[in-house]
Amino acid sequence: MIIGVPKEIKNHEYRVGLTPESVEELVKDGHKVIIETSAGIGIGAYDTSYKKAGASIAKNASEVFRDAEMIVKVKEPQALERKMLKQGQVLFTYLHLAPDRQQTIDLINSKAICIAYETVTDKLGGLPLLRPMSQVAGRLAIQVGAAALQKNGGGRGVLLGGVPGVEPANVLIIGGGDVGFNAAQMAVGAQANVTILDRCNDVMKGLNKHFGATANVIRSTPAVLEEKLKTADLVMRAVLIP
Amino acid sequence: MIIGVPKEIKNHEYRVGLTPESVEELVKDGHKVIIETSAGIGIGAYDTSYKKAGASIAKNASEVFRDAEMIVKVKEPQALERKMLKQGQVLFTYLHLAPDRQQTIDLINSKAICIAYETVTDKLGGLPLLRPMSQVAGRLAIQVGAAALQKNGGGRGVLLGGVPGVEPANVLIIGGGDVGFNAAQMAVGAQANVTILDRCNDVMKGLNKHFGATANVIRSTPAVLEEKLKTADLVMRAVLIP
Amino acid sequence: MIIGVPKEIKNHEYRVGLTPESVEELVKDGHKVIIETSAGIGIGAYDTSYKKAGASIAKNASEVFRDAEMIVKVKEPQALERKMLKQGQVLFTYLHLAPDRQQTIDLINSKAICIAYETVTDKLGGLPLLRPMSQVAGRLAIQVGAAALQKNGGGRGVLLGGVPGVEPANVLIIGGGDVGFNAAQMAVGAQANVTILDRCNDVMKGLNKHFGATANVIRSTPAVLEEKLKTADLVMRAVLIP
Amino acid sequence: MIIGVPKEIKNHEYRVGLTPESVEELVKDGHKVIIETSAGIGIGAYDTSYKKAGASIAKNASEVFRDAEMIVKVKEPQALERKMLKQGQVLFTYLHLAPDRQQTIDLINSKAICIAYETVTDKLGGLPLLRPMSQVAGRLAIQVGAAALQKNGGGRGVLLGGVPGVEPANVLIIGGGDVGFNAAQMAVGAQANVTILDRCNDVMKGLNKHFGATANVIRSTPAVLEEKLKTADLVMRAVLIP
Amino acid sequence: MIIGVPKEIKNHEYRVGLTPESVEELVKDGHKVIIETSAGIGIGAYDTSYKKAGASIAKNASEVFRDAEMIVKVKEPQALERKMLKQGQVLFTYLHLAPDRQQTIDLINSKAICIAYETVTDKLGGLPLLRPMSQVAGRLAIQVGAAALQKNGGGRGVLLGGVPGVEPANVLIIGGGDVGFNAAQMAVGAQANVTILDRCNDVMKGLNKHFGATANVIRSTPAVLEEKLKTADLVMRAVLIP
Amino acid sequence: MIIGVPKEIKNHEYRVGLTPESVEELVKDGHKVIIETSAGIGIGAYDTSYKKAGASIAKNASEVFRDAEMIVKVKEPQALERKMLKQGQVLFTYLHLAPDRQQTIDLINSKAICIAYETVTDKLGGLPLLRPMSQVAGRLAIQVGAAALQKNGGGRGVLLGGVPGVEPANVLIIGGGDVGFNAAQMAVGAQANVTILDRCNDVMKGLNKHFGATANVIRSTPAVLEEKLKTADLVMRAVLIP
Repeated sequence: MIIGVPKEIKNHEYRVGLTPESVEELVKDGHKVIIETSAGIGIGAYDTSYKKAGASIAKNASEVFRDAEMIVKVKEPQALERKMLKQGQVLFTYLHLAPDRQQTIDLINSKAICIAYETVTDKLGGLPLLRPMSQVAGRLAIQVGAAALQKNGGGRGVLLGGVPGVEPANVLIIGGGDVGFNAAQMAVGAQANVTILDRCNDVMKGLNKHFGATANVIRSTPAVLEEKLKTADLVMRAVLIP
Repeated sequence: MIIGVPKEIKNHEYRVGLTPESVEELVKDGHKVIIETSAGIGIGAYDTSYKKAGASIAKNASEVFRDAEMIVKVKEPQALERKMLKQGQVLFTYLHLAPDRQQTIDLINSKAICIAYETVTDKLGGLPLLRPMSQVAGRLAIQVGAAALQKNGGGRGVLLGGVPGVEPANVLIIGGGDVGFNAAQMAVGAQANVTILDRCNDVMKGLNKHFGATANVIRSTPAVLEEKLKTADLVMRAVLIP
Repeated sequence: MIIGVPKEIKNHEYRVGLTPESVEELVKDGHKVIIETSAGIGIGAYDTSYKKAGASIAKNASEVFRDAEMIVKVKEPQALERKMLKQGQVLFTYLHLAPDRQQTIDLINSKAICIAYETVTDKLGGLPLLRPMSQVAGRLAIQVGAAALQKNGGGRGVLLGGVPGVEPANVLIIGGGDVGFNAAQMAVGAQANVTILDRCNDVMKGLNKHFGATANVIRSTPAVLEEKLKTADLVMRAVLIP
Repeated sequence: MIIGVPKEIKNHEYRVGLTPESVEELVKDGHKVIIETSAGIGIGAYDTSYKKAGASIAKNASEVFRDAEMIVKVKEPQALERKMLKQGQVLFTYLHLAPDRQQTIDLINSKAICIAYETVTDKLGGLPLLRPMSQVAGRLAIQVGAAALQKNGGGRGVLLGGVPGVEPANVLIIGGGDVGFNAAQMAVGAQANVTILDRCNDVMKGLNKHFGATANVIRSTPAVLEEKLKTADLVMRAVLIP
Repeated sequence: MIIGVPKEIKNHEYRVGLTPESVEELVKDGHKVIIETSAGIGIGAYDTSYKKAGASIAKNASEVFRDAEMIVKVKEPQALERKMLKQGQVLFTYLHLAPDRQQTIDLINSKAICIAYETVTDKLGGLPLLRPMSQVAGRLAIQVGAAALQKNGGGRGVLLGGVPGVEPANVLIIGGGDVGFNAAQMAVGAQANVTILDRCNDVMKGLNKHFGATANVIRSTPAVLEEKLKTADLVMRAVLIP
Repeated sequence: MIIGVPKEIKNHEYRVGLTPESVEELVKDGHKVIIETSAGIGIGAYDTSYKKAGASIAKNASEVFRDAEMIVKVKEPQALERKMLKQGQVLFTYLHLAPDRQQTIDLINSKAICIAYETVTDKLGGLPLLRPMSQVAGRLAIQVGAAALQKNGGGRGVLLGGVPGVEPANVLIIGGGDVGFNAAQMAVGAQANVTILDRCNDVMKGLNKHFGATANVIRSTPAVLEEKLKTADLVMRAVLIP
């Protein structure tokens, strides 16, 4: 199959659909890969690395969309990109269509076969392509939260983990799924006071087993939530933002 | 030296001045040991064990006090025992004289050489004979506290460590010395929410290093103490009770 | 639906079928809730809290059984309560019918729809309403066991976790399910010498993974059991007592 | 003694010499405390709190310097403040005189008794007033470093702790004193690959004992340093910046 | 059923098909067990123990094969043993037939019912009889590897866990299944620098959850593998060797 | 100073007095270093590395002893080497003179200044040059012990850490100093059942604090020792062997 990877054009998106290593594996399996020039610059992967891995370099996105049977991207296709999609071409990327009517209409009209990463499920009903993003999100959230608590980050000057003699921040994590678990790992690692709310017995059992004395795992009710919010310095809740 | 061990007669004291093993070591070192019959029953050490270890068995306390050059006990000598002390005889036991004027007078009058366990210091100024009692006290305190939180112990029915979904008890430990440290170990081991108050930088640094995310170590001030007492389910403070 | 909660009348039962928070959620979902006056006193939940949550207060159990379509309780209905059940009324509580022939007959005769908490299963065959009780039982068992090892609890004066220099108690846990796991957590937390016996490979793998060097996980055979019982100071085995 | 606390005027300094709680303790001990109005705003401590604690509020710094026998500050006195110092007045604050000739001259000329926090030593030769700053510095360093590794912080887009499947950042900590230890705690807590360099056997022994398998503790030599710098994503070295 | 256990005759095989304890359980369940004399010597289980457990002792393998309806062994039957198999007799042992054509032919010709341990699956598709061997293999591998790194084991004189100041060995574990997990546990326990490669998201998530900061869990690609092999001191990869 | 390093000639000694890195530091400090050719081969340090570090290479030991003011070695000088020592020359190496009368006489006669590594003390009375050897010895002891428990190492076929369902080895460590602590770390890391005996309160307190539930720390008495030896699979005791 001919697989094409255009450079991401959405604002602040530094990622790229395929790394040189992934290209190497695909080429070994007999596929042909076309990479738009400079597509990997944001992650430090240069054209030379892609060439070495067996890809050919396209001088622009039009070339990629023209020649590829499957387009592999990161973010949902922007208006400009949607116009280049062709009937029967496979588009494989995050789509998050729910709040984005125009994109949905364009994709339908394109007659391309559009597969959203976030909807791919494994045998157990898990979302294997969404989970790594959840793991990144959860871990990053605490880093960003810690910075936001600093005076120079606009916060009250609370150090996430305190120091001996000074109480650490109260971190409230709403929902103990992949995002919450990873956030809790980082917050506990920083010695913060961590409380995780959830409503599922199995999830709570697993969280308590893992975190033991380092985090409180409490059944979420409106009353508990209200009370915990009063004393929280940092609140983390996972929501799907398209 | 002739060493004598009378049976303890203070209420609820089950311990004994020397175990058969200690006797064995003393005998090996050339001492003679006299044990009052049944002295070790409270710890399951019978006369036969003491004999096997090389001790001779005295049929009552009078015999022990009459023949021994040094008396080894656990609790301070009771009035009855103080009368049996002789000039020049060594008494080695816990004394806790401060609040006990009558005992002090009697001991002075006895002209015995009285060495209180609780005043023996090592090279670093530590109290090696008091510390094991502090370790026992700290660990036992949490066991006793956990029982006191139970409904059938007269408490509010709070489970020290909670269960997944139910918040554990807030345990407030005032003072992070030997007693506090051992109490904190047990409370953290039970997954309670543990806060330790202290005022010494070095102690707080050591506690935070040991407990990390599992306990809060906070500088004690009147305001902090007042605030923490409001939400504590269990409060542990070490005091010397004679 | 009209849901009624009588005050528990079985000896030493302090719990109550619904907390004010649960009432609040049910009322939000459109149900009507009737609470017998003082039903929540044992857990510190007063009539005022139930009223605030949207419940109406009944002045006795008869009123509750008369008006409710579903009765939510904790313990199996006592003879007095069984007489108040009505045809078609739903009874939702722990029943433990196996050893209780009279209750079984009465419930059948009542023509009420009786659902036992302990028989509710989830998608994976788990028992979600029994597990929290198992967790409480396992954790509480070690607290109670620790107290029973104390001299003043009738024991031999063994401190569950020992102190530096003094060996801790040997705790033998028969069965590594929910009860055993929670008991093991508490015993390990107290630094006891913990041995867990089980016969299921997957359970043993999970226990060893969790406890590592802190507990021995051994395949249970009659010979192993016999040997371990010889040196155990505390034995914990989960059994279903109705 | 009359103790005065002026509002800090150095750029980006939000701290204050005394908290309301410290004031309360000083007043209890019989001292008189004067706080410049708004001195505590940066840490959320308002004049009302100071008044409640027993302080009197001065309307500007001049008043504080005029009436106080001892000035308690955070940062070294700025030129403006140095002019207000009086002969015999005690100044208690961080000074860091080494690189600051003009301040040194001014302080000598002021004939005030200037005690630098950073030079106060305890019985063991430790620096009790510097250590809390070292603890804050070490912990904050990793937070700031984590942010600096993010794309939006100007970094290469490396997540400090990685995620399952993606290698974490290599954190190199030069010097295992208070700063290094606290930095290592935070970096290890975030699951980074941590290497600590030091040259003192006792320090290395202590670090290895604490961190075990979670951090490499290596004797620092020019060759080791050079090699480790090649693969480090984040380097932390404690230096005294006045 | 009549169950027979011959003594293993393959070189360096010290194990035996049934322990005295297993025999006891089988006899209790109504089976008859015949053990070849000395079959258990390699594990310290003597004929007397087997007799006490209810087995009868056969004086050689021929007797066992002649009388038993089911043969329970450890290793695949050797040529000599295969000749003794009878039509309809059940053989229960490890077989590893894939690379062993002659054994396969002989077993087919024997008309015995041959069940290979390594092919028995449980409800979840796991291999319950292979897993314990994987656990042993993984743990033993690191012991053997540590010895191989020693000078006197032919290695470069690298201490697996290093000491304070000296970097530990880099251990590369390829594949995070049962073997890899157990190997990683031992290597981490020895404070080595551990890297585990795998390609399955769920496996990597589980490994990272368990090992946290103590091991790197990285997605295996040809490039990653090549890079990690360059700096590894010890490489562990699970392969099925018959 | 002119510092000379001869190649070690004692059997099975692969170490060398100075690494190239140490040479580099000494040269930077203004010293001259002479290395016997091939002296570093046992640790993979070749003449080229020493040259690059600034050393000159001597073609044999005689040259080194002739020109150097200080000889730096590892093992005590052998008869051959002792003959080459000169009056006033400094010899810096491990000596362990106690059981070695001939060496002592030879060294006295040589009129060289002989400083034994094992006698160098630091400010706290510690032995900084002996401790790293103790750390190596303790960690290596467990590796070697694990191998000795294997069937092919002549043992009973006990796996140090067991596997889920199979009890691990009982490891008895006599003495909780540097050797014992490091041995305990490795044995605990392998999930063995570890018991450490000591007689010093402070040492026992420190060991219990570090190992918690993972090892038993018991006061050593003849009776305890005798009892523990009965069930131990592996016994580790540090002794000074010259």
